[in-house]
Amino acid sequence: MNGAESLITTLVNSGIDTCFTNPGTSEMHFVAALDEVEGMRAVLCLFEGVVSGAADGYARMAGKPAATLLHLGPGLGNALANIHNAKKGHIPMVNIVGDHATYHLAYDAPLTSDIAGIAATVSHWVHSSPGPEKIAGDAAEAVRQAGLDRVATLILPADVSWGDNPAGAAAAITISGPEMVPAERLQQAVAMLRSGKRTVIMIGGREVTGEQTLLLSRIGKATGARVMTETFPSHVRRGAGTGVVERLPYLAELAIDQLKDTEQLILLGADAPVSFFAYPDVPSVIAPEGCEELVLAEPDEDIQQALEALLEQLDAIHVAPDVHPLEVPALPSGALDVSSIAQALSHCLPENAIVVDEGITSGLACFPMTANARSHDWLNQTGGSIGWGLPTAVGAAVACPEREVICLEGDGSAMYTIQALWTMAREQLDITVVIFNNRKYSILELEFARTGARGGKPGPKAASSLDIGSPDMDFVAMAQGMGVTATCALTAEDFGAQLTEALADARPRLIDARIAPLQLG
Amino acid sequence: MNGAESLITTLVNSGIDTCFTNPGTSEMHFVAALDEVEGMRAVLCLFEGVVSGAADGYARMAGKPAATLLHLGPGLGNALANIHNAKKGHIPMVNIVGDHATYHLAYDAPLTSDIAGIAATVSHWVHSSPGPEKIAGDAAEAVRQAGLDRVATLILPADVSWGDNPAGAAAAITISGPEMVPAERLQQAVAMLRSGKRTVIMIGGREVTGEQTLLLSRIGKATGARVMTETFPSHVRRGAGTGVVERLPYLAELAIDQLKDTEQLILLGADAPVSFFAYPDVPSVIAPEGCEELVLAEPDEDIQQALEALLEQLDAIHVAPDVHPLEVPALPSGALDVSSIAQALSHCLPENAIVVDEGITSGLACFPMTANARSHDWLNQTGGSIGWGLPTAVGAAVACPEREVICLEGDGSAMYTIQALWTMAREQLDITVVIFNNRKYSILELEFARTGARGGKPGPKAASSLDIGSPDMDFVAMAQGMGVTATCALTAEDFGAQLTEALADARPRLIDARIAPLQLG
Repeated sequence: MNGAESLITTLVNSGIDTCFTNPGTSEMHFVAALDEVEGMRAVLCLFEGVVSGAADGYARMAGKPAATLLHLGPGLGNALANIHNAKKGHIPMVNIVGDHATYHLAYDAPLTSDIAGIAATVSHWVHSSPGPEKIAGDAAEAVRQAGLDRVATLILPADVSWGDNPAGAAAAITISGPEMVPAERLQQAVAMLRSGKRTVIMIGGREVTGEQTLLLSRIGKATGARVMTETFPSHVRRGAGTGVVERLPYLAELAIDQLKDTEQLILLGADAPVSFFAYPDVPSVIAPEGCEELVLAEPDEDIQQALEALLEQLDAIHVAPDVHPLEVPALPSGALDVSSIAQALSHCLPENAIVVDEGITSGLACFPMTANARSHDWLNQTGGSIGWGLPTAVGAAVACPEREVICLEGDGSAMYTIQALWTMAREQLDITVVIFNNRKYSILELEFARTGARGGKPGPKAASSLDIGSPDMDFVAMAQGMGVTATCALTAEDFGAQLTEALADARPRLIDARIAPLQLG
Repeated sequence: MNGAESLITTLVNSGIDTCFTNPGTSEMHFVAALDEVEGMRAVLCLFEGVVSGAADGYARMAGKPAATLLHLGPGLGNALANIHNAKKGHIPMVNIVGDHATYHLAYDAPLTSDIAGIAATVSHWVHSSPGPEKIAGDAAEAVRQAGLDRVATLILPADVSWGDNPAGAAAAITISGPEMVPAERLQQAVAMLRSGKRTVIMIGGREVTGEQTLLLSRIGKATGARVMTETFPSHVRRGAGTGVVERLPYLAELAIDQLKDTEQLILLGADAPVSFFAYPDVPSVIAPEGCEELVLAEPDEDIQQALEALLEQLDAIHVAPDVHPLEVPALPSGALDVSSIAQALSHCLPENAIVVDEGITSGLACFPMTANARSHDWLNQTGGSIGWGLPTAVGAAVACPEREVICLEGDGSAMYTIQALWTMAREQLDITVVIFNNRKYSILELEFARTGARGGKPGPKAASSLDIGSPDMDFVAMAQGMGVTATCALTAEDFGAQLTEALADARPRLIDARIAPLQLG
């Protein structure tokens, strides 16, 4: 077999059976090998930002990495923003980036670039395979790295891909589970929770399961500690039957207020909270000065085990959690706005749905409104780089074809990776996209005010720079242009009916929800 | 004034008066400063790949750099592919990349990334401004660097942007012209051209003017040397009244054949030609073994002066050039295909039009067919990273509002930066986009065969990976969704009439030209 066949076989042997692709000439032997090796599904995307976002969404829901196939440095560049998001969210990914043949690099052909340099900025592990006889071992190492919830980028020169590798593929890589949290840290946490001081336990990391929300709630009730997730946990189970857990707000001002009396902060997979951005006169650190912090578990350590051990050591096995009841509101009527959309979503949300949330300002109401909806998974934007939602919905739907995926998407954010709609149509994915079409970068209007620039009041040029309503975008036309059935909602009744219909349709659907921009002040 | 105002004033002082933008929170003080400082035009784009491609097209046609405004590392990542293209084409660019406040970086907020690391891969010069009192000098240095046909990337931390800078802005930077070509090299070239050996003079670099084509033709006629441009010169003047100059073909096999008897190669701003990609059994180097090469002028040296000096030293002042006559074909009729599109283009091309060519395989016929059309500028894709055409058309139209811009665009390529259409509509740019909609990555079908993968015959999965016709894309719907008037052409008559109408319309127009895929073999 050649290098490409050896590579794909190695990936398949370790269970990596899905590859999101946007290949070019240097990857043609990889593409050819898809027909020579059994078991690798290739999902074509029209832009590399869709490739990497889809790999993120897939990994979050499949619980194992996908591969990406990217064309040289520029293809990796196009994928970079969503790789960044995945890296910040502890999401595993195996990037295969084609390169010129090793002997061709010296000639500095037009597409020659510093692939390793670009990759290093968003990868935990980068390696360029030096020869076809090495590719199986290199691919196995990439899988091993990704198995640690890391981004692994393997550079595949064209001659390594087409060269003969008589040694064949590598055997399956076994990923050992997360490491146990040391007993000493658990003892520290128990002591803190028994100290009588005002304590917050904050959870984050790769995934917060329903079981973990219940454990957290029980620990909170047993000790009086407040329990919450970080602002943007990668993946959290919510809705009826899950434990009641707060969420740290996005706005630093509100987050600081929420933690203002906290004396102790215990972190489980979450980083110590900091302001998303810097603002004049707003501190970077969210917890109050003097608050004692304990990293009980790093994101790659066994958070589930830590919670169970904590409950036991606190003698709280008998404590019942606070559980979200099932409360489904009626369909809304009247004006279409962020509240009526949230209400309709809460009404319609099917059991076990997957919500991909890149609704930005307009999506804010959806999260609290669905707290008591049918139980579901909620995926958050973890790196702050927009253009994540639509691709992630693609990946989540590929991973879970039997589940309904709902993508809450801002109009501005949607336009970074709008090409994802085409892959939804091509693969006939069961995704319902809700575009919050308010014709503004509303988040930036808010942020402009927060930074205090020009007294918080944009002048005409600045205001124009935040206004994407000139011309108005018609997402129905764009979606139809890419093969996705789409409708436009102007009232709450429209929206409720269209959402009901879209969720009943197993094909991709888009709803262009025309709403008023966020009103500030 | 604050740092942002100091920065913008410094740019404007040096004539950089256009900024393509896609800002975020960390750039809000820059956005605010647009209203405080006179003279900077901000052109909003919905995706950073449009920002950088537009800056490329602007610089090619304005003869001076534009600024970009990008949001942190991921925004720079999104812009990377088109910065790569600009860098390979010797196009000046000043990138302003916002960063977190300097004191906030230590907290590793979600959007923290290695901006300098990303920038280094596509920039000649990278600098992070350490304080508001330094920003004017740093901006002036960025302008100076860009003035040398380089990519300069200036990182602007938020607190440098909002901090007070009582020292104000920097004065205008004067860029000294290109350096003269040393007399010694000219003498070598003269000797080579008088040697009687088979010689090729190849020109490239930042811009090949009409005057330079005439000089080249005269030198060729005087000496018997063949004169040609590199495969993808950044910007070349063509059509009636320009000198007859060959072009090196893209396909290495054809290029090798074109140069096969060459004994001497004289390079003017062009790199020694190499194969775009590596293929098994195709050499990387295009010129025959033993061919003597002279770099007469580097891209940043004075090519015009070198040509004039050469003509004089060859005693060839009296030699007349071969000049392209004006020959305008009739409008085509019958089937719509790449030839009839090329014929219609040649018929319609207005005097002094700007053609942006990312037609890939489908555009191939347009170049030879327009050799004797009304004189025009032709911009080529210089770095091989697709998604360049539509943004570059935006920038060219912003630079030259009085001229007609025609963008020849492959359907696959269009989808990398389709968001450019919105900026065309927003700014009401006089651009006519022709989409070669053949529902294939035809270039990759060709390249698949050339690499010899799987005997050159894609299996079903590979074939599917090169097929973008499932679902079929409707560019009329997508364009209308972004505010651009669009029509669909099914016959040559349709296309001729639509192109005539589009060129008469000063607003942006798109023609979705439905053609058959390239037939191989």
